[in-house]
Amino acid sequence: MNGRTKISMAVIRRLPKYHRYLKDLLDRDIKRISSKELSDIIGFTASQIRQDLNNFGGFGQQGYGYNVEELYYEIGKILGLDKTYNTIIVGAGNLGQALANYTNFDKSGFHVKALFDINPKVFGIKIRDIEIKDMDYVGPFIKENDIDIAILCTNKDSAQEVAEILVSNGIKAIWNFAPTDLRVPDDVVVENVHLVESLLTLTYLYRSDE
Amino acid sequence: MNGRTKISMAVIRRLPKYHRYLKDLLDRDIKRISSKELSDIIGFTASQIRQDLNNFGGFGQQGYGYNVEELYYEIGKILGLDKTYNTIIVGAGNLGQALANYTNFDKSGFHVKALFDINPKVFGIKIRDIEIKDMDYVGPFIKENDIDIAILCTNKDSAQEVAEILVSNGIKAIWNFAPTDLRVPDDVVVENVHLVESLLTLTYLYRSDE
Repeated sequence: MNGRTKISMAVIRRLPKYHRYLKDLLDRDIKRISSKELSDIIGFTASQIRQDLNNFGGFGQQGYGYNVEELYYEIGKILGLDKTYNTIIVGAGNLGQALANYTNFDKSGFHVKALFDINPKVFGIKIRDIEIKDMDYVGPFIKENDIDIAILCTNKDSAQEVAEILVSNGIKAIWNFAPTDLRVPDDVVVENVHLVESLLTLTYLYRSDE
Repeated sequence: MNGRTKISMAVIRRLPKYHRYLKDLLDRDIKRISSKELSDIIGFTASQIRQDLNNFGGFGQQGYGYNVEELYYEIGKILGLDKTYNTIIVGAGNLGQALANYTNFDKSGFHVKALFDINPKVFGIKIRDIEIKDMDYVGPFIKENDIDIAILCTNKDSAQEVAEILVSNGIKAIWNFAPTDLRVPDDVVVENVHLVESLLTLTYLYRSDE
C-alpha cells in the first residue's frame, strides 16, 4: 500500500474529475484557485474539496488557495500518471478496435501494445500500428512486453475464462468492458465500464422526468 | 415524475445490476430466489436488496422469496425497458462508429437511426445500415424520427455547443461520452461515461496495490 492510509472509493472516484478540471484551468493559464472558486466550477462543496485534498496531505495554503499547476501534477502523481503503462486489448471486436484507435489514451501515457482475439481471420490486421494477435500467445507477450493493464472487450460468456488466463499470466489490473462481474484474486484490481447499465440509468431518469 | 417518490441515485444505479443478474438466473431457468441467495451472487447485503426493492413496492413474499421472472420484468419496466427508444449518435469518430456497430443496444430496444458529423468526407458512409449524415440537418431529423436519446461522441471542445443544438431541437436525454461535464436545462437528463476517469481510477488502485 505504499504506506498510504486507506482512502474511500468515493474520494478516489472524484480525483480524476479534479484532475480534468485542473487541466482546464491550466489551459486557461489560471495560476491559483480557492476551494470556493473550485467549488463553483466543479460542483462539489468547498468543504468537500478541502476534505478530499486533505486526504493526501493538503495542498492549499490559508488565504492563498491552491497552486493550480502543483495541484494538477500532484493529483496526477496520486493517480499514477507519473509513469506510463503498457496495455493490451483482449477481444478485437468493434469496441476493442475503437479503443485501440482512441489516441487520447496514448497521450495520457497508456500504450496499447497489441490486441488479442481468438478469430484467425483477424490475426495480423493492424489498427493504427497495433497488431491483432492470436490469444494463444498472450502469456509470453504479457511477460516479454511488461504489460501492466489488460483491457477486456470480449463478450459476456468468455469474459471470466479470459480474465483467468490473463491473471494466471501475471496481469494485476483489468479494465473490464464485458457486461459481467469478474471473479479475480484479491491482488488483482478490476474497474468496470458497464455501458448497458449506464444507458439504463439514463432511460430511468428520462422516463421519470416525463 | 409519474407520481413516483424520489429514489436516490445510489438505488437507481443498482437497478441495472439487479436486472443483469436476474437475466442470468432466468437463463439458468431459476424460478425463485431469496434475498439471501441474491445477496450471495450479486454482492449487496440481503437487507440492502430488500430495502432497494421496497422502494418500488416490494416484490418478495415472506418465506417464498422473489419470483425471478416477475422481478426481472418489473425492474425492466422501472428502467424504461417496456418501450423502445430512437437514438442518434453525434460524432462519427471511432467511438461513435463502434457504438453504432454494437448490436447489443438494438437487442435491448435502443435503435440507432443515424450518426451525425460535421466532416463532409464521412457523409453517406454506412455503419451496418446506419448512415452518417450532415450535422446541419440534425434538427429536422430529430423531429421527423421522434428521437428520444442523443449519444454524444464528439471531442471535448465541441461537446457543449453540440449539446445546446440537440437540446434546442427537443432532445431531453443525452448519453455523454465526451470528456467534459455538460451544462443543460433542468428538464434534460445527462448520463456520463467518462472513460479516462475510469481508467485513472484503475491506475490509482493498481499503484496502491503494489
